[in-house]
Amino acid sequence: MTGPTTGPTTELVTFGETMALFAARRTGPMRFARDFDLGLGGAESNVAIGVARLGHGAAWVGRVGADEFGDLIRSTLQGEGVDVRAIADPDAPTGLMIKGRRTADLIDVRYYRKDSAGSRLCAADLDPELIRSARVLHVSAITPALSGSAREAVRHAIAEARAAGVLVSLDVNYRRALWTPAEAGAWLRETVGDVDVLFATEAEGRLIADVEGATELAGALAKLGPRHVLIKFGAEGAMELSDGVERRAEPYTVTEVDPVGAGDAFAAGWLADWLAGAEPAQRLSTACAAGAFAVTSQGDWESLPRRADLSLLRRPADGVSR
Amino acid sequence: MTGPTTGPTTELVTFGETMALFAARRTGPMRFARDFDLGLGGAESNVAIGVARLGHGAAWVGRVGADEFGDLIRSTLQGEGVDVRAIADPDAPTGLMIKGRRTADLIDVRYYRKDSAGSRLCAADLDPELIRSARVLHVSAITPALSGSAREAVRHAIAEARAAGVLVSLDVNYRRALWTPAEAGAWLRETVGDVDVLFATEAEGRLIADVEGATELAGALAKLGPRHVLIKFGAEGAMELSDGVERRAEPYTVTEVDPVGAGDAFAAGWLADWLAGAEPAQRLSTACAAGAFAVTSQGDWESLPRRADLSLLRRPADGVSR
Amino acid sequence: MTGPTTGPTTELVTFGETMALFAARRTGPMRFARDFDLGLGGAESNVAIGVARLGHGAAWVGRVGADEFGDLIRSTLQGEGVDVRAIADPDAPTGLMIKGRRTADLIDVRYYRKDSAGSRLCAADLDPELIRSARVLHVSAITPALSGSAREAVRHAIAEARAAGVLVSLDVNYRRALWTPAEAGAWLRETVGDVDVLFATEAEGRLIADVEGATELAGALAKLGPRHVLIKFGAEGAMELSDGVERRAEPYTVTEVDPVGAGDAFAAGWLADWLAGAEPAQRLSTACAAGAFAVTSQGDWESLPRRADLSLLRRPADGVSR
Amino acid sequence: MTGPTTGPTTELVTFGETMALFAARRTGPMRFARDFDLGLGGAESNVAIGVARLGHGAAWVGRVGADEFGDLIRSTLQGEGVDVRAIADPDAPTGLMIKGRRTADLIDVRYYRKDSAGSRLCAADLDPELIRSARVLHVSAITPALSGSAREAVRHAIAEARAAGVLVSLDVNYRRALWTPAEAGAWLRETVGDVDVLFATEAEGRLIADVEGATELAGALAKLGPRHVLIKFGAEGAMELSDGVERRAEPYTVTEVDPVGAGDAFAAGWLADWLAGAEPAQRLSTACAAGAFAVTSQGDWESLPRRADLSLLRRPADGVSR
Amino acid sequence: MTGPTTGPTTELVTFGETMALFAARRTGPMRFARDFDLGLGGAESNVAIGVARLGHGAAWVGRVGADEFGDLIRSTLQGEGVDVRAIADPDAPTGLMIKGRRTADLIDVRYYRKDSAGSRLCAADLDPELIRSARVLHVSAITPALSGSAREAVRHAIAEARAAGVLVSLDVNYRRALWTPAEAGAWLRETVGDVDVLFATEAEGRLIADVEGATELAGALAKLGPRHVLIKFGAEGAMELSDGVERRAEPYTVTEVDPVGAGDAFAAGWLADWLAGAEPAQRLSTACAAGAFAVTSQGDWESLPRRADLSLLRRPADGVSR
Amino acid sequence: MTGPTTGPTTELVTFGETMALFAARRTGPMRFARDFDLGLGGAESNVAIGVARLGHGAAWVGRVGADEFGDLIRSTLQGEGVDVRAIADPDAPTGLMIKGRRTADLIDVRYYRKDSAGSRLCAADLDPELIRSARVLHVSAITPALSGSAREAVRHAIAEARAAGVLVSLDVNYRRALWTPAEAGAWLRETVGDVDVLFATEAEGRLIADVEGATELAGALAKLGPRHVLIKFGAEGAMELSDGVERRAEPYTVTEVDPVGAGDAFAAGWLADWLAGAEPAQRLSTACAAGAFAVTSQGDWESLPRRADLSLLRRPADGVSR
Repeated sequence: MTGPTTGPTTELVTFGETMALFAARRTGPMRFARDFDLGLGGAESNVAIGVARLGHGAAWVGRVGADEFGDLIRSTLQGEGVDVRAIADPDAPTGLMIKGRRTADLIDVRYYRKDSAGSRLCAADLDPELIRSARVLHVSAITPALSGSAREAVRHAIAEARAAGVLVSLDVNYRRALWTPAEAGAWLRETVGDVDVLFATEAEGRLIADVEGATELAGALAKLGPRHVLIKFGAEGAMELSDGVERRAEPYTVTEVDPVGAGDAFAAGWLADWLAGAEPAQRLSTACAAGAFAVTSQGDWESLPRRADLSLLRRPADGVSR
Repeated sequence: MTGPTTGPTTELVTFGETMALFAARRTGPMRFARDFDLGLGGAESNVAIGVARLGHGAAWVGRVGADEFGDLIRSTLQGEGVDVRAIADPDAPTGLMIKGRRTADLIDVRYYRKDSAGSRLCAADLDPELIRSARVLHVSAITPALSGSAREAVRHAIAEARAAGVLVSLDVNYRRALWTPAEAGAWLRETVGDVDVLFATEAEGRLIADVEGATELAGALAKLGPRHVLIKFGAEGAMELSDGVERRAEPYTVTEVDPVGAGDAFAAGWLADWLAGAEPAQRLSTACAAGAFAVTSQGDWESLPRRADLSLLRRPADGVSR
Repeated sequence: MTGPTTGPTTELVTFGETMALFAARRTGPMRFARDFDLGLGGAESNVAIGVARLGHGAAWVGRVGADEFGDLIRSTLQGEGVDVRAIADPDAPTGLMIKGRRTADLIDVRYYRKDSAGSRLCAADLDPELIRSARVLHVSAITPALSGSAREAVRHAIAEARAAGVLVSLDVNYRRALWTPAEAGAWLRETVGDVDVLFATEAEGRLIADVEGATELAGALAKLGPRHVLIKFGAEGAMELSDGVERRAEPYTVTEVDPVGAGDAFAAGWLADWLAGAEPAQRLSTACAAGAFAVTSQGDWESLPRRADLSLLRRPADGVSR
Repeated sequence: MTGPTTGPTTELVTFGETMALFAARRTGPMRFARDFDLGLGGAESNVAIGVARLGHGAAWVGRVGADEFGDLIRSTLQGEGVDVRAIADPDAPTGLMIKGRRTADLIDVRYYRKDSAGSRLCAADLDPELIRSARVLHVSAITPALSGSAREAVRHAIAEARAAGVLVSLDVNYRRALWTPAEAGAWLRETVGDVDVLFATEAEGRLIADVEGATELAGALAKLGPRHVLIKFGAEGAMELSDGVERRAEPYTVTEVDPVGAGDAFAAGWLADWLAGAEPAQRLSTACAAGAFAVTSQGDWESLPRRADLSLLRRPADGVSR
Repeated sequence: MTGPTTGPTTELVTFGETMALFAARRTGPMRFARDFDLGLGGAESNVAIGVARLGHGAAWVGRVGADEFGDLIRSTLQGEGVDVRAIADPDAPTGLMIKGRRTADLIDVRYYRKDSAGSRLCAADLDPELIRSARVLHVSAITPALSGSAREAVRHAIAEARAAGVLVSLDVNYRRALWTPAEAGAWLRETVGDVDVLFATEAEGRLIADVEGATELAGALAKLGPRHVLIKFGAEGAMELSDGVERRAEPYTVTEVDPVGAGDAFAAGWLADWLAGAEPAQRLSTACAAGAFAVTSQGDWESLPRRADLSLLRRPADGVSR
Repeated sequence: MTGPTTGPTTELVTFGETMALFAARRTGPMRFARDFDLGLGGAESNVAIGVARLGHGAAWVGRVGADEFGDLIRSTLQGEGVDVRAIADPDAPTGLMIKGRRTADLIDVRYYRKDSAGSRLCAADLDPELIRSARVLHVSAITPALSGSAREAVRHAIAEARAAGVLVSLDVNYRRALWTPAEAGAWLRETVGDVDVLFATEAEGRLIADVEGATELAGALAKLGPRHVLIKFGAEGAMELSDGVERRAEPYTVTEVDPVGAGDAFAAGWLADWLAGAEPAQRLSTACAAGAFAVTSQGDWESLPRRADLSLLRRPADGVSR
């Protein structure tokens, strides 16, 4: 009757930088936001949490500082059921994100991640056996922008995954604080041929292929390699081009509280349903539902849905749950 | 020139369970909501406060624990001008409500009220003279779901009121954490014949009579006894069937801050205008205005309007009051 | 089994100005204290709450603005069981106190009470019948410093009380923001002959009689009229000279959290025990215990003890109450 | 390479009362709003900050108390780059504003400014040389309502400015807590002939000239003297009648967080562009943009834009700034 | 180079009830404490965290509700590296603790744990293999007071442990809200013969053997069975009687912030050093250091030390850590 | 009657790195401290504020990022009356400090300042004319540890000051996060010969001269060059060796709230009195008083005293200031 701590077998492996996050409580220029919450954030660990909440074993590999923020990251992810493979680097601090709202409509994010522990991630940190025994490897194009060793780690991991027949998933997640569009585009074009699933907004897709029109863009991207191309339209839904078939998903109507993390939720929803063997239409719908759910409450990852939560989006009836 | 503490003569008597209320300050899953406000809530005491603010003497009878939360309930209601007849039960604690927002659109409420002081309310707690000398007895269908003694107290109070010609008002207020639709339906059908005023949403009305259409539903309910049937449509307004005449009220346009307590405000508005001898159309309009006002600020009862506040809804002109 | 709202018969009547209170949450210069709590404070209403908590009916008479802060004062005092006779003055706002800690050791209080509603208190506001039917009239020497009409109200009330054989109690409560030592001294010397109980610190006593030594000071003050002279030494305890007998009370050892309100608690303790007919030694001990208790938690009056609380001071044993 | 503290030469001079501001954190009746932030506010100092942020030297003259709130005002304005000419009045306290939200749609502001230091402003406080060497003198019709000496100061300053050929700008800013429409109208009609730029809402304009229709109203006002008449329509944009040419500006679409300060931002935008020698159409557009920007975050002045911020309104694209 | 999530082998097994904890932020009567933090607490899970932080694998078995608070408990303990074997009971809610400071010197704790999920713990919840393969079984005398099934679970677990030669540790942890001294004493006397390590304050020890004097008490307790008897004197240190040898430990001088959890820290320190095979004198010193450390910061368990922290107590030198 | 913004002539020039500061509100491991305040800190700007508050013109030179935190630093220092010569570096962010209390007795400070704007300070940033026209140049041994260019800036500034006969003041302020004792010692020994005033704790003094005993240490340091050697004993007071005369100052008895900033306050007090031409004994006493005052409230610099505040330390009489 008692269940062990150990979660389900690891089906998805991801890695990248996760940072401590100071989030301002007041809308307006950050210098007037005197109260901040401490939390954490990282695109890849968000995906790991999201996949774990939807019922599939997920491992996150990364480096954190040998400090309080590193401990916070480790204990939070572990508490969320993620298999944490975090190296505590004694020589570099955990990176920081500072997040606020410049206005009601404009999120403001700043990073203190240069020479951080997370940016020192390297190929040797990645246990090849962990990758080989998984079913999905998920990476984002944030990691190659962090450092040479991190870029090498991505290359190495993708090679391991492909060699073992593990599905390779890439979310573009373009960060202009880290590299230029040209730099990002070059790396993406060089990598996309080794990718099975590609997640991108239209603007991100155009870093790879300069094509107008979502359908045309998806087609151009698919030609470069990925069997599954997912184009996200934010509050307007998303489209998928898989095996030559295009599908569109209607957006869910929700009240947005915090837009950060929606893309990670979308990827987690899609990958969890792929792991579950869901039908393509269902898979895209789950991805959209997860993305919609994630913006309905505060925090980058706190609002990631469980399976049971997804149905809440369908009956916003009386507004009181019990 | 000095006025005494004692408010106006008690015109309305109500009773039920009032609980301490911990309200989460952050939108999202409650486990991430680290900051909570302490307050209190209870459908019947909300109505008592609402009626008192609109100028009519109201008494609330209930049991609380002999503890800090019981003291909080007593002093707050007393401070709001309600005639508090609270027994401090030394053998059971004050019940608790925990309230949060699962998402921007979904309120999440949990209760710790099993074997609470409030659930031990019994017929002997109700002073017959207090009921007989009032003009309205207001009850909710929460109370009979709390315990056998509480159910007996409701039966007893209604009998006293009817014997003395006191108007009997019942708000369905269905709580699925307390009983099933079938259990609630059975009690409501057995009780509705002794009721003069019935407040219900459409879904609640159908617990009593399974009839489609608001007009048809109200007709079916009125046939079972109540002279006044009020059907609430939330943000879409309300309708009333009184003495065979149906009236509809347009909703007020307000920005919703906290939907909890709107139904209690509606009942308070209607009953206060009944006590004031207002015209039926005015009475329904006041009920709707009170309900609208109650959602425009935080808290279950803090936002209940005074007479002067009702006019604020009509001129949202420049947004600055002085 | 049900108890009515109406508390015990009014045994003590007091009056004066009660203000809304903004209390800074941060220790340091107030301009850096960005977070404030809203509450209320007033020496005389503190005494009324204190006496009510110790089991004796207490009435407070005063003027507040016809505004939110006036409502806050009325509902809070009423919630604490005080018989509130507050006039809502439409022509003047409720006064304000701003309270902070300049350093860990130094409280900083500022007032916005000039021309406030409270300062417009006048003799006509005081119901003579209320005073005559009480057993104690308690005033502070803050009130005469507020305005001419307030000074006249004090004179008038003392005269009524003396005529009816009601015990007259005066707490010096010197406020240098309101008047000079010379002004205060003049008024006190002119009034002390009509007083039965006098509460003062040594420094305050010397505003009336410039005598060194507590014993000598108490003797000099008693010669001017008061049958009971209470000299407070702060954390060092207190002494009483009653009917020629001097008694000293040892202080209680407590950890101080907020010193404001200790003097009011002392007066409340003494007067409640006088009303209860306690022995002089017990009465002085209760006064000291109440004063000690009041500094052990935050707020001017929130920490005033009930009878049961007083025993908590005697067994600080294991530190956990349940 | 190092720049001195001293900002650019003073181009705009303004004066008036700036107060400490307690802002409630909770929506609802202020008596339930237990948490308040301390800040500051004042229409004229808001304009000074706004003009300084848009790149033009601005001086603010006023009186504050010799107290913590006075120090807060001085250091905040000085920190914002305003040339502060504040007299610390030892005989009167800094005035206070208390600000809350009665409902989500209704701001509630109360003042404690009677006999405040700010209201004691007088003609002698204004350095004639400062006015004469500036290019704009900006006043609001709040100041003449504060006291006789303040009214005299306004008269005196306008006379100095006119004599020196300095542009005279007046924002009506009608405050019904300070004077009646009739009193305000009389003063405005008597003053408007000496004004070059007039800022008003339609309702405010009608205090001066009782004319229906915005175009007609502006025309009537212009006939009384001002070369530039600005009529503000809140969220609906604004119009300008300058030298007989009428221009209208479309509003910007923003999510409103705090409407207070929008009018001051509008005036600051217009005056800054006048100082910069911008084209009339650009000037009106900058005024509208500044007003729109100011409502998008919390605080009366914290959200005033810099030049670079204005462009943010034009591309609300992806919502994440980096 | 990467380390797996799975911690060290489980060396200590414990079980009991862990509750969600609302902690008041303000000192004073709880009804005035408007702000609360959400956390969690439970004597046995505190010990598990403490042992894990000191480097030894620890498992905690318990029941929580299938609700947000149950999830909070599971994720927090898991995040702290404890092997969580929590059953999510769909039929009962997670228990609650409400914790405040009545005064600066007096903690006030209230429980909502009657019929909670935690109280439904039963023998079948305990995996015998988990106990048999551990080296220590730790229980507290809170568990037998929760319910009949919980009492049976304790009996059963101790029997399993003894049969397998696993060290049995019992902390008396007397809770007067749960049972009387007589009831507790009866159970303790019946159980102590099966216990190897006994933790108690002097008052708790006397529930078992009514003997004056710490030395005499420890001797009497040791005669009843335990090879190791630990008597805790709070801030005055502790003594141990092991194998007939009495040792005393000097207390550490620390500034107390929150006394709750000190006893659990003491037990964790002792048991971790027993597991590490430390010398008796070292073991007692570690227990005292852990207890001292635990009171130096807020929270029941947050402040439990790691090995490296213990040395911080020895050099309170300059007060700044970096 | 109006005073200009421009403060007194710059008498003291200082420079160094000032950072944004996130301060945890909860005592305990920082990972549990969910609430943080945003402020700023920097040893040299603390001294500048302290000197300005004590009435002497002070300039601070430094680099900040072209970001919100840089703006916060500039506006705060400017608001405190410091002549800010801050370069907004577009290529590097403002450095960060994170500050918490590990226990009630142990401050925990972490830095994110590597490659920060502040660390890029260089000799060219320092206006030679500013230094030459001042009377004191104050530096700390933090700056040479930041970068090669910063070290060169210190060397350069000292040379300029000496050439112009400006008093050179150095506070050791050893930071082990930045360099080793050996590295610091080497730089200090190489620099101390050019210094007129040296501030150090005993441990810091021994980085320069390994001598036991405060008198002996001061003598050894004085021999290396400084005419004034100040040895600080924390809560135990301080000693000064000036021109061969040793003086000791008794500490003030205060309740410590936040120890950070005490050393900067001490230096500010000493230097302000040197500028004022005070007697040596008075100067040392002012330094101690300023240091004592600074620990009595929250914040690194907020609590720095003005002249009038210093007398508050001498009469902790009744605890209420008005």
